[in-house]
Amino acid sequence: MSNQNSKLDEVTVSTKPVFDGKIISLQIDTVKLPDGSTATREIIKHPGAVAVLAVHGDKIVMVDQFRQAMGRCELEIPAGKLEKDEDPLEAAKRELQEETGYECSSIRLLHSFYTSPGFANEIIHLYVAEDLASGDAAPDEDEFLEVYELTLEEAEEAVRSGRISDAKTVMAIYAWKLKLATGTFGL
Amino acid sequence: MSNQNSKLDEVTVSTKPVFDGKIISLQIDTVKLPDGSTATREIIKHPGAVAVLAVHGDKIVMVDQFRQAMGRCELEIPAGKLEKDEDPLEAAKRELQEETGYECSSIRLLHSFYTSPGFANEIIHLYVAEDLASGDAAPDEDEFLEVYELTLEEAEEAVRSGRISDAKTVMAIYAWKLKLATGTFGL
Repeated sequence: MSNQNSKLDEVTVSTKPVFDGKIISLQIDTVKLPDGSTATREIIKHPGAVAVLAVHGDKIVMVDQFRQAMGRCELEIPAGKLEKDEDPLEAAKRELQEETGYECSSIRLLHSFYTSPGFANEIIHLYVAEDLASGDAAPDEDEFLEVYELTLEEAEEAVRSGRISDAKTVMAIYAWKLKLATGTFGL
Repeated sequence: MSNQNSKLDEVTVSTKPVFDGKIISLQIDTVKLPDGSTATREIIKHPGAVAVLAVHGDKIVMVDQFRQAMGRCELEIPAGKLEKDEDPLEAAKRELQEETGYECSSIRLLHSFYTSPGFANEIIHLYVAEDLASGDAAPDEDEFLEVYELTLEEAEEAVRSGRISDAKTVMAIYAWKLKLATGTFGL
């Protein structure tokens, strides 16, 4: 199983820009399929983001915020999009501090993942932060949130009730539960 | 920690449709923030999708396919979007069968998650399928893919090498690893 599988490759024939917004842009690509026919692909471009599994004693740090796409509040791990040319590690420390006030002396990349490869190039770099020290939060001016700390049991219950329901946060809870069960983070 | 946190709520003031495509649509919502000011939110609407963690003996079933958003092939668990009014469980069985040929006598929902709540309403219902029986695959006509089966060790190596890098598949590998470590699936 190599990293290339050229007989499945699609070749971009043309790209039509549709929208260029504050955060995302949308284009329609026409591609040539392996059998020579063509198809269109609706593609969202996104600058990428970071998320932080921040462990504080026997709890995980979460923020509660309103999500317009879902029409309700969600508990999620601290996260935010990358600024232009920003190093993801620095972005992870920045978002953790801005959203929760916590600074960390130990932080490392767990892994990166694409949220929705069928239509978006958004990648999230997921970090694990430990050894947290309290400070002052400083959220963006259009960002309203509240910080919570949950035990594993509370986090799992929140997944079951739907209060937690986004990919990065569910994945972080899996990673944390596996760490508690086996002693090591990650895959 | 209740399910409501009304002091964080945003209220939709207006919605401007921008694009209505084959799979996604895009709108710009103007919202009133908790402090009374307004902001805009770029929102992608998506019909939702299903994904299947299909366990075959000591292996997990994956499909390799080209992803235009990333410009390369990706190994992912079988998945696909919901047809109009389709029951997610039926969609999960359908996608598993169409993409891999496998039929399953045991399938259940692990949990559902939003892929990218900051800008999209896409939800993925993640199922676990066991007791697989071989049959003929029948992918959609613009879908070209190859089926692989990976051990946990191979799947973890594929995450580390970037050959696997999407949210649903990484999450499924966590769920499977946790099952092998603790005896139970899920959170």
